[in-house]
Amino acid sequence: MKKFINSVDTMLAESLDGFAAAHADIVLLGPERKFVRRRTPNANKVALISGGGSGHEPLHAGFVGIGMLDAACPGQIFTSPTPDQVVEAAAAVGGKAGVLFIVKNYAGDRMNFEMAAEIFDGPAATVMTNDDVAVEKSTYSSGRRGVAGTLVVEKIVGAAAEQGMDLNACTALGAEVNEKTRSLGVALTSCTVPAAGTPTFTLGADEMEMGVGIHGEPGRERVSLVSADAVAEQMVNAIVTDFDHHASGNVLLFVNGFGGTPAIELYLMYNAARRLLEKRSFAVARSLVGSYVTSLEMAGCSISVTQLDAKLTALWDDHVHTAALRW
Amino acid sequence: MKKFINSVDTMLAESLDGFAAAHADIVLLGPERKFVRRRTPNANKVALISGGGSGHEPLHAGFVGIGMLDAACPGQIFTSPTPDQVVEAAAAVGGKAGVLFIVKNYAGDRMNFEMAAEIFDGPAATVMTNDDVAVEKSTYSSGRRGVAGTLVVEKIVGAAAEQGMDLNACTALGAEVNEKTRSLGVALTSCTVPAAGTPTFTLGADEMEMGVGIHGEPGRERVSLVSADAVAEQMVNAIVTDFDHHASGNVLLFVNGFGGTPAIELYLMYNAARRLLEKRSFAVARSLVGSYVTSLEMAGCSISVTQLDAKLTALWDDHVHTAALRW
Repeated sequence: MKKFINSVDTMLAESLDGFAAAHADIVLLGPERKFVRRRTPNANKVALISGGGSGHEPLHAGFVGIGMLDAACPGQIFTSPTPDQVVEAAAAVGGKAGVLFIVKNYAGDRMNFEMAAEIFDGPAATVMTNDDVAVEKSTYSSGRRGVAGTLVVEKIVGAAAEQGMDLNACTALGAEVNEKTRSLGVALTSCTVPAAGTPTFTLGADEMEMGVGIHGEPGRERVSLVSADAVAEQMVNAIVTDFDHHASGNVLLFVNGFGGTPAIELYLMYNAARRLLEKRSFAVARSLVGSYVTSLEMAGCSISVTQLDAKLTALWDDHVHTAALRW
Repeated sequence: MKKFINSVDTMLAESLDGFAAAHADIVLLGPERKFVRRRTPNANKVALISGGGSGHEPLHAGFVGIGMLDAACPGQIFTSPTPDQVVEAAAAVGGKAGVLFIVKNYAGDRMNFEMAAEIFDGPAATVMTNDDVAVEKSTYSSGRRGVAGTLVVEKIVGAAAEQGMDLNACTALGAEVNEKTRSLGVALTSCTVPAAGTPTFTLGADEMEMGVGIHGEPGRERVSLVSADAVAEQMVNAIVTDFDHHASGNVLLFVNGFGGTPAIELYLMYNAARRLLEKRSFAVARSLVGSYVTSLEMAGCSISVTQLDAKLTALWDDHVHTAALRW
C-alpha cells in the first residue's frame, strides 16, 4: 500500500484537519470532527446535510458552502457516519425551515440517517439518491446505488434552498433531479482501503470492471479493456437505454474521475461521450469534468447524464461557493 | 498501459477537443489546435502566454481565462510546443501592450519560446520559472526545473496584467514571484507516457523518489517510503533551507497532486506541511490543494511555498475565471 499516511487510525482526522485549515474561509469542523459545516450559517433556509463514508473526496465536505450543503458528516473510509454525527450536524445547522438529508442508497447510510431523522428534534426530510444504472442489488445496497449523480442533486437543491424554497419543495426537487439522472462507472484498477491494506479486487492487465461501484463493488461484468470510444459507447448506451427511449433534449454531461485517472484522460472520455450523446438527439447544455466523487486512488471514471429543463439549468448555473465547486 | 485512449497519435487532440467543448464559455481552440485562447480577448492588456508539453493538465490550458493566461500552447505529451504554435498564439492574443511568455525552465521550452519571441512581430518579454529546489541539473534542463510554482506566477502576474500593469512591470513581477517560490516533489509511482507504453521508471513497493521532476526525471535520491509526516518534513526542510535562513512571515502553501494521488491524501500532506511551516515561524496565509500540475497518472505530490507580502496576496486573491482556478 503506497499512500501518504501516518496511521490508518488517524488518516481521516488528519485529512479533515487539513481540509478545514485550507478552506477556513468557507467551513468549520464540528466538535470531535463529527461534521463539517458552513462557517457562516443561514438559519432561515432549509439546511442541506449529506454524508457517507470517506474516501470519495471532495464528496461531501468539498460541497459544503453557499449554494450547496450546510453540513457534511464524514464516516470512516467507506463506512457510514453514525447517527449521532448526523443528529449533531442537524442541530448545528438546522433552523425553523427544517433539515433535508441527502443520502446515497447504501444500507448503512440509509439506516443511520433514518435513525438520525427519528432522533432529531425538528422538521426533517430525506432524499435518497440511486443514480447508478449498473446493477439493481450490490454488496452494500438493495436497489440501485447512489453515486456521482449525488453531486448534481446537492448542487441543484442547494441552489433552490438558498433561494428560499421550503422543505417539501426541496424534497420533491431532490427526488426529481435524482430521477432525471443516470450514472455508470468503469474501473481500470482497484483502490486499496487503508484498513485492509490490500486492493479490494484485482483486475488483469487488460481487464476493466464495467459498472463498478464507488467502493469497488462488482459491476455488470468484467470485460477486456477496449478503446476509449468503445468504453464510452458501452457506458452511454447503458445510460441512454435506461432513460425512456423517447428521451432527448438538453442534458448535463458529468465525467467524473475516480481518483487515479488524470484530467487528460477525463477530457478525452468527455469528448467521446459528448459525441455519442449528440448522435442520439441529446444536446450537451452543461458540462462538468473532474474527480469529484472518487474511490480513493482507483483508476477509472463514471459518466452521469442529467436531463435539464430551464428550471434545473438555472439552478445548476446559480452561484456556488464551496471548496470543490465554485462559480 | 491501462488508460482511456483510442490511439497514441490522437490522444492529445481528442482531449483538447473535449476540454474546449466542456469549457466553451471560457476558451476557444486555435486553428489546428495550436493553442487554447480566451474566448473573449482583451487587446488592451499585456497578453500572457504559456505552454509546454502536455500531460500536466490542467496546466496550462486550464489556466486560460480572465485573471490568468490569454493563451496556452500544448505540445505533445512531455514535448515542447513548436515555435509556430507560440507565434500564432501571440499573433492571436497580443496587442499593443505586448506579450509576456511564461516558460518553465526546460531546454526544449526555452529554445522554442526564444525562437518564437524572435519571430514574433511585436513587443515581447519572457519570465522563466525554476522553482524546483530538488536538483541543479536534470534530464531535460540545465539549472533548476520549473514546476508547480509556475501556477503561482501565472495567477499573480495574470491578475496584475488584468489590472493594466505594463509589460516591463509584469516581467519584473513574474521574476519576483518565481524568486519567492520554492517547490519539491515526491513520487510514489511512475507515470507511463503513452508513446513509450511502459513506465518511465520503476520504484520498489517501499520506495519513493524524493525530488522527482514532473516528467519523472530523477530527484535527489530514491529512499524508503516513510510516514506522511516524515515525507512532509523532508520536503519542507528542503524548501525552507533553500530560502534565506531568516525567512519568515506569510506564505502561500500549495500542495499539488501529480495525478494519481487522491484528495484525502493531499489534504493530509497539507496538514503535515502546514504544521511544519508554522513551527518555523511561517504563517500560512493562503492555501491551494489539488492536482493542478500533474505528471499524467503519477502517484505523488509536490509542495510549493511562496513568500507573500500585501501586494502579492491581493493579486493572488483577485478575481480569476478559468477552467481549473476560479474565484
